[in-house]
Amino acid sequence: KMINNNYAVIMAGGIGSRFWPVSTSKMPKQFLDILGTGETLLQQTFRRLLDICPRSQILIVTNKRYKNICLDQLPNINEENILCEPYRRNTAPCIAYASFKIYNKNKNANIIVSPSDHLITNESEFNRIVRSCLNLCKNTKGLFTLGINPSRPETGYGYIQYNEEMISFNSEVKKVKTFTEKPDFELANKFLDSGDFLWNSGMFLWSVESILNEFSQLLPDIYDLFLKGDKFYNTNLEASYIEKIYSSCKNISIDYGILEKSNSVFVYPSDFGWSDVGTWTSLSEHIRKDENNNALISNQALLYDSSNNIIKLSDDKLYLIKGLEGYIVVDTEKALLICKKEDEQNIKNLIPDFK
Amino acid sequence: KMINNNYAVIMAGGIGSRFWPVSTSKMPKQFLDILGTGETLLQQTFRRLLDICPRSQILIVTNKRYKNICLDQLPNINEENILCEPYRRNTAPCIAYASFKIYNKNKNANIIVSPSDHLITNESEFNRIVRSCLNLCKNTKGLFTLGINPSRPETGYGYIQYNEEMISFNSEVKKVKTFTEKPDFELANKFLDSGDFLWNSGMFLWSVESILNEFSQLLPDIYDLFLKGDKFYNTNLEASYIEKIYSSCKNISIDYGILEKSNSVFVYPSDFGWSDVGTWTSLSEHIRKDENNNALISNQALLYDSSNNIIKLSDDKLYLIKGLEGYIVVDTEKALLICKKEDEQNIKNLIPDFK
Repeated sequence: KMINNNYAVIMAGGIGSRFWPVSTSKMPKQFLDILGTGETLLQQTFRRLLDICPRSQILIVTNKRYKNICLDQLPNINEENILCEPYRRNTAPCIAYASFKIYNKNKNANIIVSPSDHLITNESEFNRIVRSCLNLCKNTKGLFTLGINPSRPETGYGYIQYNEEMISFNSEVKKVKTFTEKPDFELANKFLDSGDFLWNSGMFLWSVESILNEFSQLLPDIYDLFLKGDKFYNTNLEASYIEKIYSSCKNISIDYGILEKSNSVFVYPSDFGWSDVGTWTSLSEHIRKDENNNALISNQALLYDSSNNIIKLSDDKLYLIKGLEGYIVVDTEKALLICKKEDEQNIKNLIPDFK
Repeated sequence: KMINNNYAVIMAGGIGSRFWPVSTSKMPKQFLDILGTGETLLQQTFRRLLDICPRSQILIVTNKRYKNICLDQLPNINEENILCEPYRRNTAPCIAYASFKIYNKNKNANIIVSPSDHLITNESEFNRIVRSCLNLCKNTKGLFTLGINPSRPETGYGYIQYNEEMISFNSEVKKVKTFTEKPDFELANKFLDSGDFLWNSGMFLWSVESILNEFSQLLPDIYDLFLKGDKFYNTNLEASYIEKIYSSCKNISIDYGILEKSNSVFVYPSDFGWSDVGTWTSLSEHIRKDENNNALISNQALLYDSSNNIIKLSDDKLYLIKGLEGYIVVDTEKALLICKKEDEQNIKNLIPDFK
């Protein structure tokens, strides 16, 4: 039987504050069927990766408070494949933890790291690109990111600039020049015009050897902390070791800690119908609109003289809305949000649940 | 022991459609503590009238579906004092029924007829005026209405015009010249300027003999129907007789059927802090506003950049509202209403509950 060296790490520790009140810190976005497809975003992500890795080689990293939700939503997953973070420490510690655990099992592993709460509509194209990148991981020491060809001057995403002229492994991947934070609208337009900027999808591929090597060079504190636990991974002492060290881990993202500093980062310009589903506005792009451009997720809403709204309502309640334009209205049993679409990015800090 | 001839008839059959979704056809406005005072509007009305009549002489006329709500809310009331209408037939049949029932017990009765869902804030002034009118009822054949000195060009009320020069019993009551329907804004302003228009409060006072005499003259069909049941009132055959005749009663208001046609109608210009609490806007006048003129009935609302709203929310839910101006937002467990203040009168016909 041929050994499959493909591993996946699904990062599922987010608290989903931007989708409040549907998403709450008790039940964040990745655990919700926010698009009404019959699968939660985590379930979609898991199913997508099952085409690439055996079930036993897909790891979920999440906060320990979400462990039971993961077990409920992924019924055939092995409990030891759910890695529980005792604290939120951004993506670098999360990836270090998973990488050491995988390395302990298989030193030839190639890993795809993926957020748990994104949408991909062209799964076969995703599959093709991931397999192609995993092949590069096997044969090189590169760190690969999936960049999305931008279709609009989105200000909610980070961007990756590539360099056409720099040497790369093949024609499909490009050498990364810079990572940028979310731009303002003017800058986003310039990015779009320049033609060498891609959206940062937050999906990364590398061999376990390459990423651990990068950790040892660029984030040696984190590397040393996890290295000292080497004998505990995949034993019943793992959880208590993680519990002990996690609070002293630096809170830092993999982008900032490694990708922006490493010299071996490549990007695969991709088109597989991706969205981070990060805001009600981005979600509404995937929802059919009524004749007045209302994105309406509800069975029982009576809308009059209302247009350009995003409206997500409970199914067991009656709604009468008249004369509303350009608002987001989200109602759940526990909370109601009403705000203008343009205020969506500003309300996060107003929500008591996440303060 | 002196006989008390004062009787009260509380009309409590309304379906309260204008306060949807707080008021529903199952639990209309009069049965709600809509102002948060600790008493429902019916309970307030009943308590006010207890200063004027013995408990046993206060009758409630309501739809039979609301009988148990009345019994629950007025725990010491005699069940036979709740008159159940099998159908909605406007105010004239309701008053005829109550009058015949009272006449059967006491031919010298003087009656105050009152809606069940209005607000009166100056109860001692109300008391004084009602006693003064009941005294006139005893000594004359007049039909007395309580008119409210208008403080604004309200388009939601009917008006009563009086004639200063026509002969009256005393200086306090005026002879009525005309009743008018709800005016438009321009006309309401003219009414206000003219100085001889009062708001029609829907509260009437008369002797039982006078009102039955008017029924016999002006609404003989209704009079005859109820007269034929004379032997059944205050017996255990009353309900089945009413059940039998009510559907053939003309659907007509006391204003249109008698007051606009009779020559014996007087009005008492009054000031006792009255409101019909007929709309969210009129309700909001009795609620303290925040510094941005939001009338907010809720404990858990977070309001940002929002002004001039009327907001009535559940207490056990969290609300985040940003950038809303001039709206009515009413949330209950079963329904949510969002509409502009100026649309309040137009939404009634859109509500499925009342269609």
